[in-house]
Amino acid sequence: MNEAHDAPVLFDDLSELFSPHSIALVGASDRADSMGRRTLENLTIHGDFRGELHLVNPMRAEIGGRRCWPSIEALPAGVRPTVAIIVIPGAGVLEAIRQCAQRGVRFAIVLSSGFGEESAAGKALETEMRRTAHAGGMRVYGPNCPGIVNIRERLGLTFSPAFRDDLRPGSIAIATQGGALGRNLLQGGDRGCGYAAWASSGNEADLQLADFIHHFSRQPDVRGVLALLEGVRDGRRFAAAALAATRGGRGIGLLKIGRSEYGMKAAASHTASITGVAEVNSAVFAQLGITEVDDVDELVDFGALLARAQPCGRDGIAVYGSSGGACALVADILGAAGVELAEFAPATLERLRSRLPSYAAIDNPVDTTAITLSDPSVIDHTLLAVAEDPTVGLVVLPYAIDYAEVTGATARRFVELQSRTGTPIVPIWMSERLGEGYRVFAEAGMTPMRSARNAGKAIRRWLAFGRWLAERADRPDPLLLAQGIGPEARSIRLLTEPEGKVLLGEAGLPVPPARIAASAAQAGLAAEAFGAPVAMKIIGRDIVHKTDVGGVALGIADSAAARAAWERIIAAVRTARPDVAIEGVLLEPMAPAGGLEVLVGISRDAVFGYMLTLGLGGVHLELSRDVARAMLPVDARMCAELLAGLRSAPLFDGMRGHGGYDVDALGSLVEALSTLVVSRGHGIEEIELNPVWVGPKGAGVQVLDALVRLREY
Amino acid sequence: MNEAHDAPVLFDDLSELFSPHSIALVGASDRADSMGRRTLENLTIHGDFRGELHLVNPMRAEIGGRRCWPSIEALPAGVRPTVAIIVIPGAGVLEAIRQCAQRGVRFAIVLSSGFGEESAAGKALETEMRRTAHAGGMRVYGPNCPGIVNIRERLGLTFSPAFRDDLRPGSIAIATQGGALGRNLLQGGDRGCGYAAWASSGNEADLQLADFIHHFSRQPDVRGVLALLEGVRDGRRFAAAALAATRGGRGIGLLKIGRSEYGMKAAASHTASITGVAEVNSAVFAQLGITEVDDVDELVDFGALLARAQPCGRDGIAVYGSSGGACALVADILGAAGVELAEFAPATLERLRSRLPSYAAIDNPVDTTAITLSDPSVIDHTLLAVAEDPTVGLVVLPYAIDYAEVTGATARRFVELQSRTGTPIVPIWMSERLGEGYRVFAEAGMTPMRSARNAGKAIRRWLAFGRWLAERADRPDPLLLAQGIGPEARSIRLLTEPEGKVLLGEAGLPVPPARIAASAAQAGLAAEAFGAPVAMKIIGRDIVHKTDVGGVALGIADSAAARAAWERIIAAVRTARPDVAIEGVLLEPMAPAGGLEVLVGISRDAVFGYMLTLGLGGVHLELSRDVARAMLPVDARMCAELLAGLRSAPLFDGMRGHGGYDVDALGSLVEALSTLVVSRGHGIEEIELNPVWVGPKGAGVQVLDALVRLREY
Repeated sequence: MNEAHDAPVLFDDLSELFSPHSIALVGASDRADSMGRRTLENLTIHGDFRGELHLVNPMRAEIGGRRCWPSIEALPAGVRPTVAIIVIPGAGVLEAIRQCAQRGVRFAIVLSSGFGEESAAGKALETEMRRTAHAGGMRVYGPNCPGIVNIRERLGLTFSPAFRDDLRPGSIAIATQGGALGRNLLQGGDRGCGYAAWASSGNEADLQLADFIHHFSRQPDVRGVLALLEGVRDGRRFAAAALAATRGGRGIGLLKIGRSEYGMKAAASHTASITGVAEVNSAVFAQLGITEVDDVDELVDFGALLARAQPCGRDGIAVYGSSGGACALVADILGAAGVELAEFAPATLERLRSRLPSYAAIDNPVDTTAITLSDPSVIDHTLLAVAEDPTVGLVVLPYAIDYAEVTGATARRFVELQSRTGTPIVPIWMSERLGEGYRVFAEAGMTPMRSARNAGKAIRRWLAFGRWLAERADRPDPLLLAQGIGPEARSIRLLTEPEGKVLLGEAGLPVPPARIAASAAQAGLAAEAFGAPVAMKIIGRDIVHKTDVGGVALGIADSAAARAAWERIIAAVRTARPDVAIEGVLLEPMAPAGGLEVLVGISRDAVFGYMLTLGLGGVHLELSRDVARAMLPVDARMCAELLAGLRSAPLFDGMRGHGGYDVDALGSLVEALSTLVVSRGHGIEEIELNPVWVGPKGAGVQVLDALVRLREY
Repeated sequence: MNEAHDAPVLFDDLSELFSPHSIALVGASDRADSMGRRTLENLTIHGDFRGELHLVNPMRAEIGGRRCWPSIEALPAGVRPTVAIIVIPGAGVLEAIRQCAQRGVRFAIVLSSGFGEESAAGKALETEMRRTAHAGGMRVYGPNCPGIVNIRERLGLTFSPAFRDDLRPGSIAIATQGGALGRNLLQGGDRGCGYAAWASSGNEADLQLADFIHHFSRQPDVRGVLALLEGVRDGRRFAAAALAATRGGRGIGLLKIGRSEYGMKAAASHTASITGVAEVNSAVFAQLGITEVDDVDELVDFGALLARAQPCGRDGIAVYGSSGGACALVADILGAAGVELAEFAPATLERLRSRLPSYAAIDNPVDTTAITLSDPSVIDHTLLAVAEDPTVGLVVLPYAIDYAEVTGATARRFVELQSRTGTPIVPIWMSERLGEGYRVFAEAGMTPMRSARNAGKAIRRWLAFGRWLAERADRPDPLLLAQGIGPEARSIRLLTEPEGKVLLGEAGLPVPPARIAASAAQAGLAAEAFGAPVAMKIIGRDIVHKTDVGGVALGIADSAAARAAWERIIAAVRTARPDVAIEGVLLEPMAPAGGLEVLVGISRDAVFGYMLTLGLGGVHLELSRDVARAMLPVDARMCAELLAGLRSAPLFDGMRGHGGYDVDALGSLVEALSTLVVSRGHGIEEIELNPVWVGPKGAGVQVLDALVRLREY
């Protein structure tokens, strides 16, 4: 059952959904405030649709001078709409879809609601819609969706009366689950961010969020995608679509709703999606090059930067302003956000020095002082000196205060200067007064950031995407299990520790030499054979927590002690778990002192399949939850990157005079484990190695404890 | 030298500075764009000053029909202005101050710049100003300051042409260092936050930020203070002023500039203040009940909540909206911010159920669905049901989208409802389109939050201030050393470990029994006497890191091993540090296994005096910097609170089946240490106990290592 991993994920071309040549409107109307009328007006009055339009309404002969047809079936022979927009009440939708599919319509957009979001019967109807459509080679978008807003072509296949208000064109596409928040992003256009198109996937009877992300990843005029996600329906499809975008250099800003307990509860009552495990989702997003944000305004911030430029590898940020306090604050907040301020080249400092007064600050941040008000030409020379510095990748302009026309005038000057440099110039508009300067920046598409904090976050994310592109975009695909969970298992089998270690050992993981003692005498002999202190552990089916039942003895020094320990362990476990068949006691030499205890785990996420978990074990794990996660496969290089991202990374590298630990051997172990799991298809349910002993550099690693659960079919 | 701790900090009454009966303007002018003219116009045209105004300008007989006097001295006998505003160039300022002090002026406001911020000579002039003023019983505000903006009385003792633009009255006062960012806060009035007054302390030749904070703490119509801080000049004064405000129930929102390395550098080049140590500052702010924020917009957010209500102890937050997606997002972000959503009482749920459709969500968050658009009266009943719920302390209203008049109409309804409930109703305006609804809320003073994230942060801080008031406001004053650093020490003396432990032992701290071995033989005898494994450590003046020079041997099991260890230690240290006089080897019984290693430290902060540092020692300390800090004195109760705030708190309490550690004994140790330090006045330079061994509950604590430095006078 391995073939599913490798089958490519296929996506239909959605170009004709976004730019149809011919549209049928099923449910066209001129009744005030009806969906049918609003959709018709968006097509004929508020937008620029120039193709064929066929109205369907069995009760009317014409609407506004346009002929109406009683049904899709009744359309003249030879008429084959690319898109049918369906706005009729729920009961008639399935029949309309049947007729559309039969007529050869390519896409049905079902704006009507009252399906899966209301009842199980509605959900079943959605499945029927999909089947009917697919039978005729048609795709369905919706139901319960707001339709398509193609802003670049001023085309609205939507009933929304707000369509006409949010038409600022640009290079960022929006793909959402949830209509209101999608519209919120469109209103972000008032701050300067322009959009290519918006689709919100509704109930996802057929087309999913992933299909829209994939579509946008193929549009040459799209530089980035903003996504609002409640839950991923098909992890494999989602990952394939995301990688198509990010590997192609298109950033994805994503806000996941349902990350906290409250949000999960609220989202669950609001939609039918699985919200997923927040930590797993975040790890997957990072691995796919997706930029996860914390709020809707941060989506606009990130999109606005993507629209300005792809991060170019010059990570130095310059701060340029005329208020010392604001410059200091912004430098402070950028620093706290982990953004690096550029160190100017000597030539840059010279250019600044030649045009600024002696009391100005020319080191980054540049505080020009108020001289720029009396002699604005100073801005031209000094701003360009900064933007052209070889280490500067982006210039921020803090505006602490709105001074009406005065600010407007400097804003116009910066807009003009932006046309003369490829380095993005990003204003930070810190005032609550949105005056002329703000409007000048917004209209020029120089989307002001609304706080230093937001600017810091957005710039850090933008730079991080640049680094992902440089370092990670060429990585092999993660293992994408079909539909995440694979076939249903007949049962789950927990291996005993020795069984598990045999499996791991055969896969190349270093496990300690072991003997099984069926009697106290055998235990004594085994201890003698090892000639060193041993660990002794009960072997019994279904005993997960061996310590809790008195089943473990550590540091047993000699043969006599081993015999005594054997008796003690057997007696304790018999008392604590009389139900369990005891298979003996496992003896292994103790790991040398001076190693680290590390947790290495494999689990199956319901959406994204096999995930590796990696982190310091013991108390540290429970106190600080300092673990890294990644979808399989994980090789040694990726293991090293995951370790480097932990807060405990300095410990692995060596600190306080310690030379560090054997992360190379740990990398080999993780790679072997990953290969083992991948090679067994859906055969592994869970593996937890806790702890893995990681010795000092060169001393290797050892699996000290292993819990393995297999899926049986 | 102990008396300085107890001397009260005195503050002059600044009421007449903010509301003078009589003003002299030294440097009055009618020259276009001059400071003198702009200040005069703010007094006579743009503001409401109704008292006596005396113009001083030796070159003019009158300005705009008002008589001019050549100097303060030349004013008619009997004229005694409460405030003199000085706007003349730097050279004449000191003489003007002399004349003002002689005439009995109460306050001189020096708006002129060119003093300490430019040169050492300017700094010296400031000292002279202060001396001259104090000699005549006068106080100086400035120089290089923007003056006083008394918004409630529409009074501007300022040259700022923006004075007339930012006059939204309210109950929040602003005290800043740095003019531009102060004006930024005033422009926050456009979002609905109203202000009582603003002072920005300029070069602080005399009056400091603390004096203004103290003044605002005594104004009955002030409910909170927003402060922008670059550096604290006098920690004792700052703390006294802050406590006057916070203990009186007035929250202080504070933004510290210069927290990151970049910010410190930028702030240092911008002002003369000491930026201070960021971690110490933050700990002190928390102890004083000050709410530290991360950006200027967060100051406005916090101030706006303070203006609405003092937190009442009902910590439950309700979310009420008509978009399911926005409700879920806001619940999510509030949850992530650590804010608790209220669990409604059955009666509340009943009231909601009776008025909302069956498909609405009535559990918190409340998603009314769009029914509120067709039947707005539903809002009245259901919003009030939520606001009156006994667990609800605040209601947030997410607005994801601006729908122009429609949104304006619901906003007006909420404004009306706010007049009928004491529970603050706080809109979150998530859209970049600031339409009618936004303006309605702003004009009503219902200051919309600009993102769910900001709302979450502000509400968490507002609730935390409520808890501080309930739990901490009655704590004894922190130990406030006069001017922080006290008298200059002649020298600093490092005690040897046994000397230090004797000092600590006499103060009641548990130190292990110890013997000093001057020979290998003595070491052997000592080990025998203890009858248990011992720790052996070199005793040598000026050896700080004993391990680094081979000066430590642990777990020495018997007499023979002790003799050998003695020889080894002496030889190693002689080689490594031939410069040091060796005083022998210290022997102590090893602490029992199974304890925690904890760091307890005392240091002297240059601004705030003695600080305690407390946290898990060892690797954990270096990896996670998980320490708590507080100004002395710290008693056992406060020690327990500090421990409870650590990320490692669960470890102290007991986890993974462990019963926890002896935090009571640790509390007694910390209290004894605090008492020792306080009793010695300025006598301690530093104490570092690393580690203190903390045994299991009931097993006590022991100072295992001690580094003590004394100040000698």
